Order: sequence, then structure tokens, then C-alpha cells
Amino acid sequence: MTYRAPVSDIVFTMRHVAGLDWAVADGVYGDLSADLAETILGEAGRFANDVIAPLNRDGDKHGVVLKDGVVTTAPGWKAAYTAWTEAGWNALPGPVEYGGQGLPTLLNSACVEMWNAASMAFGIGPVLTMGAIEALNIHATEDLKSRYLEKLVSGEWTATMNLTEPQAGSDLAALRSRAEPSSDGTYRITGQKIFITYGEHDLTDNIIHLVLARLPDAPAGTRGISLFLVPKFLPDGTRNDVRCHSIEHKLGIHASPTCTMIFGDNGGAVGWLVGEENRGLNCMFTMMNNARLAVGLQGVAIAERAYQQALGYANERKQGRAIGAVEGMSPIAVHPDVQRNLLTMKALTAAARAICYMTAEAIDRAHLEEDPARRKKAHERASLLTPVAKAFSTDIGMEVASIGVQVHGGMGFIEETGAAQHYRDARIAPIYEGTNGIQAIDLVVRKLPLSGGQTVRAQIAAMRATVARLMKEGTPAFGTTAARLRDTIESLDRATSHLLQQVSSNAQGEALAGATPYLRLFALAQGGAALAEMALAANAAMAGGDGDPAHAGRIALCRFFAENIAVGAGGLEDTVLNGAGFLQDATLALAS
Amino acid sequence: MTYRAPVSDIVFTMRHVAGLDWAVADGVYGDLSADLAETILGEAGRFANDVIAPLNRDGDKHGVVLKDGVVTTAPGWKAAYTAWTEAGWNALPGPVEYGGQGLPTLLNSACVEMWNAASMAFGIGPVLTMGAIEALNIHATEDLKSRYLEKLVSGEWTATMNLTEPQAGSDLAALRSRAEPSSDGTYRITGQKIFITYGEHDLTDNIIHLVLARLPDAPAGTRGISLFLVPKFLPDGTRNDVRCHSIEHKLGIHASPTCTMIFGDNGGAVGWLVGEENRGLNCMFTMMNNARLAVGLQGVAIAERAYQQALGYANERKQGRAIGAVEGMSPIAVHPDVQRNLLTMKALTAAARAICYMTAEAIDRAHLEEDPARRKKAHERASLLTPVAKAFSTDIGMEVASIGVQVHGGMGFIEETGAAQHYRDARIAPIYEGTNGIQAIDLVVRKLPLSGGQTVRAQIAAMRATVARLMKEGTPAFGTTAARLRDTIESLDRATSHLLQQVSSNAQGEALAGATPYLRLFALAQGGAALAEMALAANAAMAGGDGDPAHAGRIALCRFFAENIAVGAGGLEDTVLNGAGFLQDATLALAS
Repeated sequence: MTYRAPVSDIVFTMRHVAGLDWAVADGVYGDLSADLAETILGEAGRFANDVIAPLNRDGDKHGVVLKDGVVTTAPGWKAAYTAWTEAGWNALPGPVEYGGQGLPTLLNSACVEMWNAASMAFGIGPVLTMGAIEALNIHATEDLKSRYLEKLVSGEWTATMNLTEPQAGSDLAALRSRAEPSSDGTYRITGQKIFITYGEHDLTDNIIHLVLARLPDAPAGTRGISLFLVPKFLPDGTRNDVRCHSIEHKLGIHASPTCTMIFGDNGGAVGWLVGEENRGLNCMFTMMNNARLAVGLQGVAIAERAYQQALGYANERKQGRAIGAVEGMSPIAVHPDVQRNLLTMKALTAAARAICYMTAEAIDRAHLEEDPARRKKAHERASLLTPVAKAFSTDIGMEVASIGVQVHGGMGFIEETGAAQHYRDARIAPIYEGTNGIQAIDLVVRKLPLSGGQTVRAQIAAMRATVARLMKEGTPAFGTTAARLRDTIESLDRATSHLLQQVSSNAQGEALAGATPYLRLFALAQGGAALAEMALAANAAMAGGDGDPAHAGRIALCRFFAENIAVGAGGLEDTVLNGAGFLQDATLALAS
Repeated sequence: MTYRAPVSDIVFTMRHVAGLDWAVADGVYGDLSADLAETILGEAGRFANDVIAPLNRDGDKHGVVLKDGVVTTAPGWKAAYTAWTEAGWNALPGPVEYGGQGLPTLLNSACVEMWNAASMAFGIGPVLTMGAIEALNIHATEDLKSRYLEKLVSGEWTATMNLTEPQAGSDLAALRSRAEPSSDGTYRITGQKIFITYGEHDLTDNIIHLVLARLPDAPAGTRGISLFLVPKFLPDGTRNDVRCHSIEHKLGIHASPTCTMIFGDNGGAVGWLVGEENRGLNCMFTMMNNARLAVGLQGVAIAERAYQQALGYANERKQGRAIGAVEGMSPIAVHPDVQRNLLTMKALTAAARAICYMTAEAIDRAHLEEDPARRKKAHERASLLTPVAKAFSTDIGMEVASIGVQVHGGMGFIEETGAAQHYRDARIAPIYEGTNGIQAIDLVVRKLPLSGGQTVRAQIAAMRATVARLMKEGTPAFGTTAARLRDTIESLDRATSHLLQQVSSNAQGEALAGATPYLRLFALAQGGAALAEMALAANAAMAGGDGDPAHAGRIALCRFFAENIAVGAGGLEDTVLNGAGFLQDATLALAS
């Protein structure tokens, strides 16, 4: 079972939840139309299906090989990568002045989902290159930009992000890599970086490393970190003093090389400062929303892939007899428990996709709106939604991949089947680009207080407006959707008030203790409201005579989510309000 | 970080939840005392820690090798297995007349947990041998028993269960393997069996296969299946006509060979009938409660192992600064979100352990009680609890192993760390020995109606009695535990009434659709009540002057479970009552 990009679901989500139609109407997206978007996504889907998806299983089996400092990717990967860049996909969101197509983050997000569904190990490479392009475009000197951006935008070269060191993971304040200024205006970088994705590979002729390091006189902590551009090959063609020391033997995404990089074994790697001295983290934060969203999209992607595979298997595999059937075996997809599994997979995937695409549109508006007040609002909305998009989507990516194994029964545990690979691959996304625990803390401590709480209040008000429309909707197919989503959103509202009060008082520890259940609660409410928007749009289309059979499914999926998944909101609220305060004491009691 | 058997937690659970003290006082356990049990478990723990646990990582890396029909296990495994049998651990629960020690299932269950925590791939082998011993002891002829049981009880030989065929997994009615009677009273077995755990290996000189097959004149379906004993080597020392055709490349438990077995390539493997013709499934069901419990214990085991590893890492790894700390980095175990992860791991593990041990004690009483009415009650209680023990424990095994990876951050994704192995190993337990979906269906359709619903009612009444004691408990350390557990149990009660009504009416499809959330709800209530029993016992001990610092932790763990985990009950109840009815229609709407 290979992957088939769900282009019509994707386009429907973009139009009816992520505001593609409004953004086009507003003129925010220039001359992009919904039709053009659909055409582009159809092409991307074909590329993902036909070229990338077939690499996924072999890439997993083959992995990558490090020999004498050279990393060789799996057979077929270099050709696929080259074809992918030549088709212009890497350049899709890139700046026009450097050869990019300047298309919106929303459109690229849908593509990122498809590349990663086709193969997460393939998709993660470009995520890093695109992030580096963004950081350089905003912070680098014109000289650096003119030297590097064109080849990064085209994908002729790739980029890496070198943050982590053995003692500095989530806590970058502990970072030790050093940068010594040289008389020619460059710097000499020394240090060891770990977990560097595509730190070394054979896909391209050069690799541009963005490296966080400290200047000699830098203050301690995060305010003494600067960002440097360190190319594998220097402009004169000589090899820079940077090498891949080892690659990791990982649980998943085997085809993606994860490297330990050594800078400056022979006196220091030549690097150029990006942005101001000691402001390296700010430069990194520039691209943080996008990179986090991209990892969230990996969660959506692996969930979609796992769902398609499980659905295909459940429709083919015959065991047992359907209730009411007279003889013979039935496809397991008719059994209620398997149906619950498949519906849960699809509903979680659709909700996560909707949240990610909403985040993408907010990022676009934060850049493209002309009115500064609207830009700020959009920026804050993107900031609010980003940790939810990252953490919820990657959590459900893992959950859905695990259900996918379960639907396959014993076959799911056999590597040849492929379901197990999704379960392994999915496991990294809740960890990298800021663990999901850190996302939850970011949501509660930094994002809820934005504009004195007005940003989150506005978001909840929008959810309530959706439910108000649902309440007026008399179609029996909606069942108790409106009431369930109303309860979910009210739970979110109360939990939000509670946390806002805590973060502004001295109860920050308790707020942190409630952060993870709160993020899940937020996602249930936001995801439910998003599915309701799609269900309402589908219902309106049906009332208008649109005979697309997918519309009834959209209503059903929303109802399933509301009645079977969003109902977990009450328990989550309870945990935030009543349970979280006890964590510290419980830990102390257990440690004794 | 290796494994340290949590003997004192295990003994406390056995005494205060699983009724070891009462059973000893009742005389049900003969001359076993709590002290003797603790001594035995201490020895078992040392063996698990010192001999088995060190094999786990290498076994995973090395796997097993099939060459010319011979399966070679990883280095060190044969020696460890031999030492384990020579120390008498395989014989612990075995019948005394065949050299066993005849010790209770409860005691053996604690040992099974430890063997599997030390290494799941090691522990699963004996689970099958012990199951076969039970089936043979009850159903086989004296002749077969005298020929095979002694060596199976000692562990000199191992046994396998040959049920699954490519077209017959959960649905054994589709089974095709054949058995032809021979004139000498034996049978000739032909057919292919897949997923046969330890179907071939080098640990012992002989392997005794229990094989399900059809006689020539057998009725179709499950009433035409018979059970046969098929040894690898015949009594005269010649090789039987059975061979390992291939071994699976699996997601986890790499050191456990999973074989495709071919019976009768050369005219038929010689087999002996076990039990009556066409009653093979009944013989299998004899051992089903025990085998399912054993797999549940694997879930507890992998959760305990993952928890210990995560806790060790969280206490060592320093990142960030604790709230209120002045300088330097703090162990990540002080951060509230990490605390939530660790507490969730420990609470789920403790609840699952308690449910498994309660099930074990019920199995013991079903065999050992003298009064037939008490035996029947115990048997029904064991039958009710078994699917919960199997499914909940293996689900949380997977969940806890996944949280364990998360606590390790990026290191968790690196295979050398070991956390990823637990995540991979844990994934099989919800699948084999009856998928967890099938456990949930068994619970709802076959177990709830036992004695007209009185069995489940009695179980709920016992939970309520525990909460009534909690309600009277004024110790502030309990917080809102009583109220939360009361709500959980009332949710269970309402959901139970609803399902009992549905299974007795024509709404069986809806009952099946609610089965999985119902099983989880049952486990939250039962697990919460069990942790409360332990907390009450700890509290009483403290009041009586017992200065064991673990007691305060037991109260804290119960409270954490009640306030942070059991609160999910309302949502699950809602799903059972309100959500499940829509699954069939939702599936139809989405299929169009």
C-alpha cells in the first residue's frame, strides 16, 4: 500500500478552515487563486505519490552509511532529490529575488505534508533548508545572501541547523561552541554539535551549516549566543574545517542522516556572522514558527500515511463475520472496534491538519497583511497556534501510527508490512524542534499572556461563533455535535482563565504542571471547531445541490470527533484545575 | 540503566490488593506465607536483575539467526535459560506430581513480571511453555503426561502454541491445517502455521508443539478443531516432520524467534490427540486466562522497565533551572512537565500491576477454593478481570514506554539508549494472545453477562466499598481522591448498565462499538480502587507507627492517579453512552 496524496481533503481544509478563500478575496495572496492552488497541489501530490513514496521503505531498510567522513544516502535518494529540486518544489516558498516562487506558507505547508507523508526521512531535509533560507533572508548581510540564497532556494545546496550540544539540548544557555573573530572579518568556529539532521550527505555538492556559538567576550547564558554561517566548502572551493564524526543509529527515519559534527579540528571552521553579535537566538526564533509548524505537519503526514495503509488493509483482510451477515468472512473494516480505530485515525488527522493549516495562514497574514494592526494580530495568532500545531499534531501522529499497527494485527509487528515503520518514524516528531512538553510550556507561559490574554480570548470567541452556527443547524446528521463542542470550548475557556491567573501570579509551577493537558484541551476545542467549519461548509454545499459524496463524510467525521474524542475535554479541564497543583508534592513523596 | 526488580512494591500489591494475606489466612495457599513469598520474590528479583536483564540489549541487537533450518539465539541466551531452569524458576507454578513446586499463579505472576521486565524476548518463551503444561495437565492422556510433563515442567524442553495460519488469525474458524488418523493411534499433521513464538531455537534439545488442526470428517468452523501434541523429536529420537521455514523480521522482541512452521512436508508430522476430537479450542481456552494474564504482565513489565530507565535519566540529566533555584542547571526531574510524565508512568504501571495481580489471585481461588460456589465466583471474577488485565496493561505498557522515550528527549530516539527498544518491544503485547479489541469485545459480550450481570455488579460494589472507606478518611494527603474515584466508579456503573442492556437486546453492534472505551473506563475505576486500597493500607501502617518512607508515596500515587488520570472517566462514559451508536453510520458516510 503506497501513499496517495489526499489533495481534495487538503484543498477543502485550506479553503474552509484555513481561510484560503478569504485570503485570496482580501488580496493577501496576490494573484494566487484557489484553482491555481489546487493545480499546484495536484502536481505536488503526483510527485509525492510517484517519486518519493516508493523510496520510503527501501530508505528505511538501507539507512545511510558513513565511511571516511562521507555519508551515502540510500539508492535512489539522490536522483529523487535532484528531480524534486528541478521540478521547483524546494523553491516554492522561497523569496522571489533569489529565484523562489514566493508562494504562501499555507500552500507550502500542504506540500510539506505531502513530502513527509511520502517519506518523513526525505521531507525533514528541506524543512531545515527552508528554515535557513528564512533566517538568512531576514538577518544575513547582502553579501552572504547573494552568495548563498540562490542555491539554497533552488535546493542545489541544502542547509542545517546546528544548535544542540551534548550538554545543551532544550537548554541552549549551556552551549559551549566558540567563535573567534579573525582579522578578515570572518570567524573561526570550534565545537561539537550533535543530532544534526542531514549534517553530511551526498545529495548536493555543498552544505550550508547555520551554527550557534559564543564569541570570546560573550555574556553567559542565552544572551551570549551568536549565529554563524559555515559552509562545507568555502567560496574558493576548499573544504572547510568541519566534518561528520559519526551518525546515529536511530529508532526511525533511518534514511535521514543524523550527524555528530565537529567544527574546528584544524584551527577552526571559517564562518560568517549572521545578524548581530549575541543575538543568535533571536535569528533562530525568526524561523521557529515555521520550523515548528513544519514538524507539526510531519505529524499530520505520518498520521495520514498510517491511516491510508490501515484503511487499505482493513478493507482487504477478511476475518470474522459482520453482524447480520449470513456466511463467509467479512473485511475487518466492518467490525465496530476496527471502525472506531479507523475513524479515530481519520478524525485526529483531519483535526491536526486543520490546526496546522490555520497556523500557516496566520503566519502568512503576519507577513503579508498591509495594516500593521492586522499584521500584529495575525502574528500573535500564529504564535498562539504554533505550539498547538506542533505538539498536538506530532502526538496524534504517534497515536495514529500506533493504531495503524494495531489494525494490522500480527502483520503490523512485521517490518515488511510497513505499518511498524510509521510507528518508528512518528516517534521523533514530538521530540525535535522543541519537545512537546516545551511547546506546552511555551503555550501557557508565553502565548496565553499575549496582548493581556486578548489573543487567546479572540481565538476562543471564534470557536464559539462556529458552535453558535452549529446550534442553529437543524440537520439531524449533526447529532449532538453542537452540544459536545460547546462543552469542550467552555472547558477550554475555564482552563484558560485559570492558567492566565496562575501565570500572572506566583503559581507558575502549577501552571507548568497543567501545561500538557491544557495544550491537548486547546487542540480538542480548536480541532473540533475546525472540523465543524468544514462540516458546515459541506452541509451548505449539499443544500446548494453539490453532489460530492465527500460532504456527508465531512459531517460524519466532525460528529464522530465531537461525540467520541472531544468528550475528553472535561477530564483534561479537571486535571488543569484540580490535578496539576499536586505534582510537586507527589514527586517529593515518591522520592523519599 | 539496568533493571532492579521492585520487590517491595510487588509484595505490597500482592498483600494489600491481590489478597495474599487473606488467601494465606483462608488457607487457600496451603503453607505459603507472606514472608516466604517475599523471600522467593527477592530471589527471583536478583536472578532477573543479574542474569536476564543484562541480555536484553544485546539480544535486541543480535536477534536470532535461521540457517539450514536451525535457529540460533543471541550469545548468552542458552546459558541464561539453562541457569534459569536449573534454579527452578520454570517449575515454580508446575504440578507437583511432575516435579513442579505447585506455587500459586499469584506468586508466579510476580515472577513473570520480573522475567519480562528483565527481557520481554526472554520472558515470552516460558509463558508458552507454562500454558502448554496447563493444557496438557488437564486434557492429555496419562501416557502423554508421563512422557512430556516432567521435562516441560523443569524447562528441559519448551513448548509452543500453533494456532495462527495466514488466513486464520483472530478468526480461528478459518483454520485449515489437517490431521489424518494413523492406524497406530497417532495422527499425521500437515499445514502451515505462522507467528509461532520460539517455534524453533537452540535453548533446549526438544520442542513440544501444541497444534490446532482439523480431522478429515470434522465440522466446519470452530467446532471442528482438535488439538495435537507434535514433538520436534519423536520418542525414539528421530526428527519429526516439522521444520521452521522462516523467521520474521519484527519491530521488537528481536531475540525471540517468531517462526513460520511447516508441518508434514514429508507425509505428515506425527502427533498425538490432546483432549477430545473437535474440542481443541476448549483445551486452548483452558489456558487462555493464564496466558492472557501473562501477556498483561508483559505490559506491566515493560512499563516498569521504561519507568525505571526514565526516572534514572531524569535524575541525572541536567537542563534548565528549577523554579526558585538561583544558579546552575537542575536535573530535569524537577521540572513540572517531566514530573507529570514520570508520575503518569508510575501510576499507570502500579494500577495495571494491581489489576493483574487481582486477576491472578482470582485464578488461584478458582482452582483452590474448596467450596464450589466460591470457586465459581472466583472463576467468574477471573474471567471478568482477565480481558481488562490483558488489554489495559498492554495498552499502558505501550503508552508508558512512549513517555519513557519522551523523557529522554533526543537521546530517547537513539537505539543505544535503550528506551526505544522498550517502545518497540511493548508494541506486540496489545496484539498477540487476542488483540486488545478482542479483549474489549470479550469483556462486554461474554463477561459482563456472567451470572446475569451479578459478577460485574459485585466487582463494582467492592470498588464502592473502597471509596466508602476513603470518604471516611480525613488525612489531608488524600486531597480529592475519594470524590474523583467515586465519580469514576459511578461512570463505570452507568456504562455497565447501558452495555448490559445493549448486549441483551438487539443493539450488540453498538455495544461492540463502545467496548474499547468501556474497557479503559473499567480499568480506571478498578485501578483507582486498587491504588486506594494500597493507600489506605499505607495510611493505616503510618498511623500504626510504621516509618517506611514508601507509604507516603503510595498515598501520593493514588491521589495523582485519581486527580490526573481517573478523571478521564467522564469522557469515556460519554463515548460509550452517546458516541458509540454512530460508528456504523459514520463509516458508511466516509466510505461513499
